[in-house]
Amino acid sequence: MSRETVDLAQLPDRTPPEAEEDLEDFALGEDYALNPEYTRMVADALERGDTERLRELLGALHPADIADLMGFLSGDDREELLPHIDPEVLAEVLSELDTEIREELLEHVPSATLAKALGEMDSDDAADVVDDLEADKRAQVLAAMPDLERAAIETTLSYGEETAGRLMQREFVAAPQFWTVGQTIDHLQRESDDLPELFFDVYVVDPAYKPVGAAPVSHLLRAHRATPLAQIMEQVNEIPVDMDQEEVAYIFDKYHLISAPVVEPGGRLVGQITVDDIVGVIQEETEEDILALAGVTDAGRDAGVFGIVRSRLPWLLANLVTEAIAVTVISPFQPMIAKIVVLVMLLPIVSSLGGNAGTQALTVAVRAIASRELNAANALRIVARELSVGLLNGAAVGLMLGGGLYIWQHDLKLSLVVFLAVLANLFVAALGGILAPIVLERLGRDPAVSSSVVVTFMTDFFGFLALLGIAALILL
Amino acid sequence: MSRETVDLAQLPDRTPPEAEEDLEDFALGEDYALNPEYTRMVADALERGDTERLRELLGALHPADIADLMGFLSGDDREELLPHIDPEVLAEVLSELDTEIREELLEHVPSATLAKALGEMDSDDAADVVDDLEADKRAQVLAAMPDLERAAIETTLSYGEETAGRLMQREFVAAPQFWTVGQTIDHLQRESDDLPELFFDVYVVDPAYKPVGAAPVSHLLRAHRATPLAQIMEQVNEIPVDMDQEEVAYIFDKYHLISAPVVEPGGRLVGQITVDDIVGVIQEETEEDILALAGVTDAGRDAGVFGIVRSRLPWLLANLVTEAIAVTVISPFQPMIAKIVVLVMLLPIVSSLGGNAGTQALTVAVRAIASRELNAANALRIVARELSVGLLNGAAVGLMLGGGLYIWQHDLKLSLVVFLAVLANLFVAALGGILAPIVLERLGRDPAVSSSVVVTFMTDFFGFLALLGIAALILL
Repeated sequence: MSRETVDLAQLPDRTPPEAEEDLEDFALGEDYALNPEYTRMVADALERGDTERLRELLGALHPADIADLMGFLSGDDREELLPHIDPEVLAEVLSELDTEIREELLEHVPSATLAKALGEMDSDDAADVVDDLEADKRAQVLAAMPDLERAAIETTLSYGEETAGRLMQREFVAAPQFWTVGQTIDHLQRESDDLPELFFDVYVVDPAYKPVGAAPVSHLLRAHRATPLAQIMEQVNEIPVDMDQEEVAYIFDKYHLISAPVVEPGGRLVGQITVDDIVGVIQEETEEDILALAGVTDAGRDAGVFGIVRSRLPWLLANLVTEAIAVTVISPFQPMIAKIVVLVMLLPIVSSLGGNAGTQALTVAVRAIASRELNAANALRIVARELSVGLLNGAAVGLMLGGGLYIWQHDLKLSLVVFLAVLANLFVAALGGILAPIVLERLGRDPAVSSSVVVTFMTDFFGFLALLGIAALILL
Repeated sequence: MSRETVDLAQLPDRTPPEAEEDLEDFALGEDYALNPEYTRMVADALERGDTERLRELLGALHPADIADLMGFLSGDDREELLPHIDPEVLAEVLSELDTEIREELLEHVPSATLAKALGEMDSDDAADVVDDLEADKRAQVLAAMPDLERAAIETTLSYGEETAGRLMQREFVAAPQFWTVGQTIDHLQRESDDLPELFFDVYVVDPAYKPVGAAPVSHLLRAHRATPLAQIMEQVNEIPVDMDQEEVAYIFDKYHLISAPVVEPGGRLVGQITVDDIVGVIQEETEEDILALAGVTDAGRDAGVFGIVRSRLPWLLANLVTEAIAVTVISPFQPMIAKIVVLVMLLPIVSSLGGNAGTQALTVAVRAIASRELNAANALRIVARELSVGLLNGAAVGLMLGGGLYIWQHDLKLSLVVFLAVLANLFVAALGGILAPIVLERLGRDPAVSSSVVVTFMTDFFGFLALLGIAALILL
């Protein structure tokens, strides 16, 4: 195994190029991820204190790739590299950084520089960064910002985490209902400096500033100047400012939205969410499900050993407790086991098969609930289907195991015991695997988080009980 | 448990409304998913053959929600509902349907209707639908389409599945380098009918039709008419037509792209990919990882019992084989177990803890590889960190289990055995959990698919060996 690790650290013989243009090509591997060799070139330049080379190396990278580079460097190298980043690029790099790395680095950015960088970001990105600052630094930075920008950030931070309010940017384009396409375009050209860098819809609002529709910019472009906005606008899906980001992502995905207006409780337009923010949310939410199913809380790529231990130990202890309870079922059967020792080898097989079958069923159920493909309208049908699958798989696997065992032990009764135990346990696995997430979700819990603990306990406990209980009935 | 299922099928007392506008509000639940009661109202109307009511019920739904409704109806109801869908809405409903349901329904749509619906779709969606048709129906439908549309679909289908070529639409807007903003806008207004329904960038091309930049439409809108395109255009990320869709999604996510030009091997612009297609890809790819980690191949929401059995049985059999091999390690220790029967209860605990710790480590590693946060530049550091975590968690959990066992059995040597076995097995779990995905990925395999089989085998085999081997050394 250790040889593999050494191989892995080795890289194809490519001589790092000198010219800046070639550097750009060299920076990204074939898979468009940062070339590991590039990280080493930066680390070397840092060690040599070669400012000129660092400028070249950073100059060839997109801000998103500089943020990526930061993730691969050690903590010390990161701090050292920070002052070499062009102040104009800094804003973008900060928006792209992983939270833990950002928190660590922000301490080393002077408040004035930071205030300037924040001014260049969209209000949602700026609020994210400010949220990562320690209290006194935050006060300093906000004090150094213009009033309007500060107010925008403070309002964004007043919304709950993971809500539409946090996700939205306060920069958007709105036009009154009675305007024509020509009036709108003239307005855009006059106010060019105050517009968001990119926008995809002009929101059409009534006198109370409630959105009544949206005119996609590509429709504005090709319509005639005299056309009233009301004629080319489309229906909008208004997003309440306190909507959970997971729901926002669901709506964007379902209706293929590019942008959507965010409204206050009274219906007044206060911001917009664009689909590029949603891509991040979808990644985040699915990631959370994957990790929760495996019993890990995300500790982040740069977490220290103790951070990771803290994120995993609780699940291992939960596993220890449930497993300790499950094995108590073995206790009364000890005399039988001492006589028929081959049962010792069958116990782990039966419980492991149950655990796997349960995990399969529950993973599918958790995903179906998350994507809203499983609800009261089809729950009974899907439960019935899972139970049939459990019985069929149980019969198939039970026959294989029973048959294999017969070839080895020539004991028909023992094979029958094993067949029945597997069949029963895979039925229980299906029952637990489909019902645990449904019930947890009905109780308002996240089904991804605790389902596996429940199902593993059920299949272990019942697997032991089924094998030993049926053995006691048939073999004794 | 069965009571919960019954509760689950019950719904709050809300009387279904009569007016069409109220129907719209009633159709979607608070979470913006289709109200289960609505599904039942449609099923009832179908049973009564109430055409008028069906038209009302469908009329209140967005095409995406009609597709969703189809997913919740039974197969027969679906077929019956099909002719009630407005032909103009049919194209959109077909693009939104799950593949299995679409395949099943397409048989019942007349070829002429289908050819017309396909003409209204973007080329990527139309190709998806044609791909689901059976050979002779496909020939009929294609024959009924205008030459240009048919050619577009056939070209799209000539690209490999899950590539940029399949994902892209052939409808896009391009303008020559030397045009001004004014010329471009005039052109868009003249050609209004031939433009894609929505677009976000005008691609600027050289005489060889290679993209040299992109002008976001919001920049076109606010620039002055005399401004040359070359002045407002931005750099583009060209997507080769054969790039894997997972890589395309990575690039969109990393650089926050809204649209990107797709080019043929010679560099010629042939299509564009927009971010709303990417949202689907990201969902799909992460979903694949979740299911693969749990040992399930996606059989789809509407798969039959046998389809699901086929998607899960191979993994259970793999589990059966590896587990059968793992338990052979118990065999030579049977005489010892017959004497010290409490070992029977400790075996499942030690192997289960190892399995869980291994799953934690491998899930984090699989995700880090998928999001390109783990590569040769930081592999050694991350492996070292995982091994430290394994030792620390092993010590913590080992102490708990050893301590608990001492309170029960008052046997210091036995507690020591268990402590050492847990410590060793959690170290092995960390080693397997981090190295299995790294090595599999280096060998060009998908680390999500086979890692768990490898790691579970390692922790079971080694867990048994550690507990029994150390027991033989210390207790005998």
